[in-house]
Amino acid sequence: MRLIDAAQLEDIALGAVVLGTGGGGDPYIGKLLAQQAIERNGPVQLITVDELDDAALIACSAGMGAPTVMIEKIESGGEVVTAFKALQDYLGRPIYATMSAEAGGGNSQTPFQVAAELSIPCVDGDLMGRAFPEIQMVTPTLYGISATPMAIADEKGNSAILNTIDNRWTETLSRNMTIEMGCTSKIALFVMTGRQAKEAIVQGTITYIEEIGRAIRHANEMHCDPIETVRAATDGFIIWRGKIADIDRRTETGFARGTAILEGLGDFEGRTLRIDFQNEFLIAREGDLALATTPDLITILDSESGEAITTESLRYGFRVAVLSMPCDPRWRTPGGIELAGPRYFGYDIDFVPIEERVGAVA
Amino acid sequence: MRLIDAAQLEDIALGAVVLGTGGGGDPYIGKLLAQQAIERNGPVQLITVDELDDAALIACSAGMGAPTVMIEKIESGGEVVTAFKALQDYLGRPIYATMSAEAGGGNSQTPFQVAAELSIPCVDGDLMGRAFPEIQMVTPTLYGISATPMAIADEKGNSAILNTIDNRWTETLSRNMTIEMGCTSKIALFVMTGRQAKEAIVQGTITYIEEIGRAIRHANEMHCDPIETVRAATDGFIIWRGKIADIDRRTETGFARGTAILEGLGDFEGRTLRIDFQNEFLIAREGDLALATTPDLITILDSESGEAITTESLRYGFRVAVLSMPCDPRWRTPGGIELAGPRYFGYDIDFVPIEERVGAVA
Repeated sequence: MRLIDAAQLEDIALGAVVLGTGGGGDPYIGKLLAQQAIERNGPVQLITVDELDDAALIACSAGMGAPTVMIEKIESGGEVVTAFKALQDYLGRPIYATMSAEAGGGNSQTPFQVAAELSIPCVDGDLMGRAFPEIQMVTPTLYGISATPMAIADEKGNSAILNTIDNRWTETLSRNMTIEMGCTSKIALFVMTGRQAKEAIVQGTITYIEEIGRAIRHANEMHCDPIETVRAATDGFIIWRGKIADIDRRTETGFARGTAILEGLGDFEGRTLRIDFQNEFLIAREGDLALATTPDLITILDSESGEAITTESLRYGFRVAVLSMPCDPRWRTPGGIELAGPRYFGYDIDFVPIEERVGAVA
Repeated sequence: MRLIDAAQLEDIALGAVVLGTGGGGDPYIGKLLAQQAIERNGPVQLITVDELDDAALIACSAGMGAPTVMIEKIESGGEVVTAFKALQDYLGRPIYATMSAEAGGGNSQTPFQVAAELSIPCVDGDLMGRAFPEIQMVTPTLYGISATPMAIADEKGNSAILNTIDNRWTETLSRNMTIEMGCTSKIALFVMTGRQAKEAIVQGTITYIEEIGRAIRHANEMHCDPIETVRAATDGFIIWRGKIADIDRRTETGFARGTAILEGLGDFEGRTLRIDFQNEFLIAREGDLALATTPDLITILDSESGEAITTESLRYGFRVAVLSMPCDPRWRTPGGIELAGPRYFGYDIDFVPIEERVGAVA
């Protein structure tokens, strides 16, 4: 166990955007809400999954929706706590701790708000080791753990408890409810025991993104190469350097969808990369050649600062590097690839691990 | 209190379609399910609202969705009981009795299924004195009674409990959930006390529709004029006789929407009536002249049998009479007209009571 104070959320937010692969939303508002909660209630206990009692219940707290809307439609602030408490009331027994659902921008912060407001611990981990657009795309799905009962709440005061036959149905029903609620909502879900969590979650995610964030901050303070710093901190590969030549972004079916076109610079001069996204970056292609695909991570870094850029913040002219990182090994199993591989998203190509793709190019 | 057995549901179903004004779905499947439940569990106690203890809780049980889909996608049978029990579990206290949400086809039967399965009484009343397409269109809305907590369940096993800030939001969120569930769902909602029910519901609806149904049956057995029989039983007005010349019907935004064109016959020869519907018939117009509008009731009766025809059963060539009936007086208040009058449905005309419209024509 260690304590997380308001200042530490800065590095956590910075690192979360790197693993967020463009999604999870800008962490700014979530960070402010979490910091205010910590200032009112004191620092949050961050515990490892091993510190959890096997019988203790945990549940994730998160924001759902299109990041393009999240940055414009400000939450009232309390709805995620409302959702978490509604879930607890429904269960009829206390939830011992909360956790991040994904290592994405805002969703790295929201559990700290809930933990501070309710004076409960936050577990150092998440359900993906990255961000993914749909609720069923979490390692617990691979272990047969249900997303429901799930609570969902909006900023107006509407809420619901869902119980679904599988996690795909959780996604379908809560996505549509989120769309009706105005394209964003707050949710509490994936109730599991300590024993289930020890097996099914991705462990240590918060500590890992804090290290990445700290590395970015140090690189900027010390004038080191920020891109190389992030690459080293993540064991990733720089697959492109260039500038944003075009960005096509639309909010549809409750997601931020679109494509970014990157003209090459330096070693990549004269070449063009196309990156598609559905909240998260899914595939990076040069012509017909895939350079990286989901479930491996694809992140766009600002060349100057090394900071990751979310899809809704991408703008024409940004000078960037594209970082790809290996995903959690469970995503590379047949079940993981079926759940979040290229074919799920409609791309007719096989998943090839990023280290093999890079080796083949080199 | 009186007992309702399986045979009595025949007349209740027949009469419900008359007040259903084209909506509420064909009662056939709902009637079979209710009759089977009564055969297994014995007759249902139908109680008047005055027999309810002031503190007793009641809740309505109903089907939601597009009747065009209801007749093709057969329910598994148990989901309305699942929804009702989920609502009771959520409340954490027993619900003493159930009731019809609307005097529409299937929804006149479903509460008898729930009552029989759970061995609880059914209250003689409903929330409209007719059928309406949207959840907020009930007399309890005029008394500030909330539709939520509401339970919703589908035939696959998905379910939810909703809590909304007003009844319009209940409609929005549950309608979309129903669409995702495949355009039909079963719901339990409008929890209220006996004291609230005495003020806010439309009383005696089941007895009334049973009388209408019995009148239709007798007219057919005795070879009386079935149209005049229904008119007399409902204190209504026959505003048209003709045949269905065209029917445009589509399932959109979770409703059966469309228009029926009726060529006049007999006294109406050479004239054309147009009736628009959104699950229920909303407005009957000859050119620019409205002959009848919501919230007054508009029902299409088969000329041969006097039986009412639901929107999804209308076919080219049917010979029919159009019956219009005064609605419950509460629908004619400013609040009632705002909730379910012509302008709510996008028609730029004032509501005029059917008896005045008929008087003006005569």
